[in-house]
Amino acid sequence: MDDAKPFRPEARSPRGFADKRAQDLAGERAIIAAVSDVYERYGFEALATPAFEYADALGKFLPDGDRPNEGVFALNDDDQQWMALRYDLTAPLARFAAQNWESLPKPFRRYAYGPVWRNEKPGPGRLREFIQCDADTVGSARPEADAEIIAMAVEGLEAAGLPRGHAIVKINNRKLLNGLLSAAGVASEGQTLAVLRAVDKLERLGPDGVRQLLGDGRLDESGDFTKGAGLAAKGIEAVIGFTAAGRGARSATLDAIADAIGGSAEGDEGLAELQAIGAALGGLGVGEDRAIFDPSVVRGLEYYTGPVFEAEALIEDPAGKRISFGSVGGGGRYDDLVARFTGERTPATGFSFGVSRLAATLRAANRSPGVERRGPVVVIAFSQEHMAAYFALASELRAAGIATEVYLGQSGMKAQMKYADRRGSPFAIMLGEDELAAGDVSIKDLDEGLAASRGLSSNALWKQTRPGQYSVKRTELVAALLQRLKAPGRDV
Amino acid sequence: MDDAKPFRPEARSPRGFADKRAQDLAGERAIIAAVSDVYERYGFEALATPAFEYADALGKFLPDGDRPNEGVFALNDDDQQWMALRYDLTAPLARFAAQNWESLPKPFRRYAYGPVWRNEKPGPGRLREFIQCDADTVGSARPEADAEIIAMAVEGLEAAGLPRGHAIVKINNRKLLNGLLSAAGVASEGQTLAVLRAVDKLERLGPDGVRQLLGDGRLDESGDFTKGAGLAAKGIEAVIGFTAAGRGARSATLDAIADAIGGSAEGDEGLAELQAIGAALGGLGVGEDRAIFDPSVVRGLEYYTGPVFEAEALIEDPAGKRISFGSVGGGGRYDDLVARFTGERTPATGFSFGVSRLAATLRAANRSPGVERRGPVVVIAFSQEHMAAYFALASELRAAGIATEVYLGQSGMKAQMKYADRRGSPFAIMLGEDELAAGDVSIKDLDEGLAASRGLSSNALWKQTRPGQYSVKRTELVAALLQRLKAPGRDV
Repeated sequence: MDDAKPFRPEARSPRGFADKRAQDLAGERAIIAAVSDVYERYGFEALATPAFEYADALGKFLPDGDRPNEGVFALNDDDQQWMALRYDLTAPLARFAAQNWESLPKPFRRYAYGPVWRNEKPGPGRLREFIQCDADTVGSARPEADAEIIAMAVEGLEAAGLPRGHAIVKINNRKLLNGLLSAAGVASEGQTLAVLRAVDKLERLGPDGVRQLLGDGRLDESGDFTKGAGLAAKGIEAVIGFTAAGRGARSATLDAIADAIGGSAEGDEGLAELQAIGAALGGLGVGEDRAIFDPSVVRGLEYYTGPVFEAEALIEDPAGKRISFGSVGGGGRYDDLVARFTGERTPATGFSFGVSRLAATLRAANRSPGVERRGPVVVIAFSQEHMAAYFALASELRAAGIATEVYLGQSGMKAQMKYADRRGSPFAIMLGEDELAAGDVSIKDLDEGLAASRGLSSNALWKQTRPGQYSVKRTELVAALLQRLKAPGRDV
Repeated sequence: MDDAKPFRPEARSPRGFADKRAQDLAGERAIIAAVSDVYERYGFEALATPAFEYADALGKFLPDGDRPNEGVFALNDDDQQWMALRYDLTAPLARFAAQNWESLPKPFRRYAYGPVWRNEKPGPGRLREFIQCDADTVGSARPEADAEIIAMAVEGLEAAGLPRGHAIVKINNRKLLNGLLSAAGVASEGQTLAVLRAVDKLERLGPDGVRQLLGDGRLDESGDFTKGAGLAAKGIEAVIGFTAAGRGARSATLDAIADAIGGSAEGDEGLAELQAIGAALGGLGVGEDRAIFDPSVVRGLEYYTGPVFEAEALIEDPAGKRISFGSVGGGGRYDDLVARFTGERTPATGFSFGVSRLAATLRAANRSPGVERRGPVVVIAFSQEHMAAYFALASELRAAGIATEVYLGQSGMKAQMKYADRRGSPFAIMLGEDELAAGDVSIKDLDEGLAASRGLSSNALWKQTRPGQYSVKRTELVAALLQRLKAPGRDV
């Protein structure tokens, strides 16, 4: 390498990957801690699987070819096996459950959180790495297992910061629509999927747009044509009627669903499952303000086989009415994922949410936990000679639980105060020659100083009055700071 | 795909990657929580960087060629830039600091934890993914910044579970040996590195083996010859004398080092830095039982430019003497990493430890936090009819903070008890027809039952006396369980 012009890589993180600073991390960690606590109280045990899985275990059958990275980050290990970074926490759970089935307590309940990776085009707000948090029960076919997941999901979201009644889980069952479609003569899996995709657009396009997608197809404003599911008029109206069967009360919705699906064995099975889920939710104390049945809920993933759930955050509009603030998670029953490995159908159900997304929702709703965290107390470094005294003071404050640091840069007093402001410090502590001689300490209350300086007419006046600056005995410093930190109106 | 014989991937995790169950995770999470708490009290802020960095930012200049994966897991992004999974937390910090230098408070203190990935041959106890936890100060050249990192490291290890005096940081300074070598006429970087590598083997080979490696070379038992650093006899003895200059007391060691290094500007500078570190450690209340100077400490990484530290866990041998239980972390000053991006030398110092390794050390020393966690209380499911009652009972226990689950499998009473045992449950709760009618609940104390059953002569006798089984009023269940959970001798 040429010494005169050494290679200097540009300091940047890869496209679609982001650094997270303390403020954001505090919010995410508070969510994870609160939700983990709820999940453990429900008897779910923690599990962590590696970042990598063999690609075949992820359900991707990657060719050793041109584009191994379709959707996932994959690489060829040195024994020529394709590995890929997990793109969710469900596929690794299925692999783990299949691998350890004999030795696991059954049903096996686990929760997990951690990063997942998607090899997709990054965009605004769409990262290629994000934190998911999942809870699943593997090995129970009972609708009560779904109900438990739903109850736990809503309690978890509440613990994370959404007040009671501001997180709601909307529940549907794939078997209902399947039953309705088979009664309407729809047999192919492709047509069923097309119907699901059409219903999934209900909120965006409204019933008439969905009618087109259920029928011959739809031409959008840009002139693009989407081929429809090809249902006849009667089938279209049956589907639309079904999706509109949601009522406020759970029992009323079940009655309306019973009317809407006509009669088919699969539909009746789905209805019975929802009835059992409703009964268990009652036992679990989950009322209509926290979980409802909603036939318009579809969920994108193809692997769901029965009940599906979607969690929504609600906020109050100016009139006090609760309106949707968007999806904050979802899940459902998937009975075939473990069977991919073992050949034996293994019933499973779970709920998943994006931690960063929930944090953003809480932030937008002003409900973010841990965001008002303050920086440490900063001990001003006046002279090299007295560093040991500054450190002793810092140790004392830390031992009292007060985050503290000694300024360790090379700058003077003014820059040190600016540093303390930048760190969001509540106080700067000054231990100059005068204070040391007198056995005193000066406390600069940075919040108070800031507030006062706004009201002062000149810099000279500021210097004269020194707003927010107090002197206390060295021996009384800890008590004085603790009292000030607990003062009303101070966010620490 | 052939329906008769579908593809069934084998359920296994990739070579060198491991799943972690609840027990191990509890230990690791307790360490991270305790250490984070200490680091935040020192004013270090949390930072999380992505799993991926551009390969050039990691200091690897990967060819678009045959073996891009030398040491790291790398892949070519779809814009043809090489990305690699981080192999430590220091290189991403250097990238972050360089990228955001203008807007950061300076010095910038951050801590971070998370997985790192090494593309190496996996072996027993050597995984390709593991959790590291780092703290670094970027932008302070002061030896006090090193002292603060050392004090924080030892306090963090103690908070994680090592008792006071069982975690010790051994401190050295690269400048001492560099000064000594330049005084001895050693000028080339290669020769200096060979000396470092030789000294690093002191513990394994002893002084005579190291003498050979410092001189012409060493033939080991297997017949392999390692070329030596090529020092002359006088230089060899100077190095050996230096490495043996460690004394119990910090001041005594500094005196011995001053004698051993002779006179050179760089050596004197290193000595002055250690003196300043010692003074700051005194101010921070870190005594000789927690941090010492030890000239035999080298640390493998080439990027260290000054002070280096190594943390050791100590245990007591049968005679009560504290002996080393192995390294549990290390660090040092590295002033050139940020300069790779910016061209400007940026002083930095930090400490890093492996979370799983520390957890294993604590486990081996019987000091693992959080390992004695119990499974949830299990509510036995007698009949479908009363599921709502079981769920209501479970909700009540959870609200009281008792982890509880309703059995949701399909098996009978005996298998449910076995399941509860397998989960490590303290109690099984029985709410059968009789109990429901009488307003009672039966508690099966599984610990007591187990202990009693060992002392009983027959299964019949067991059935008759039902050891560890009690009946309480339904209204008194929560109080009864809380009391039993707090009983002495019960680990919950």
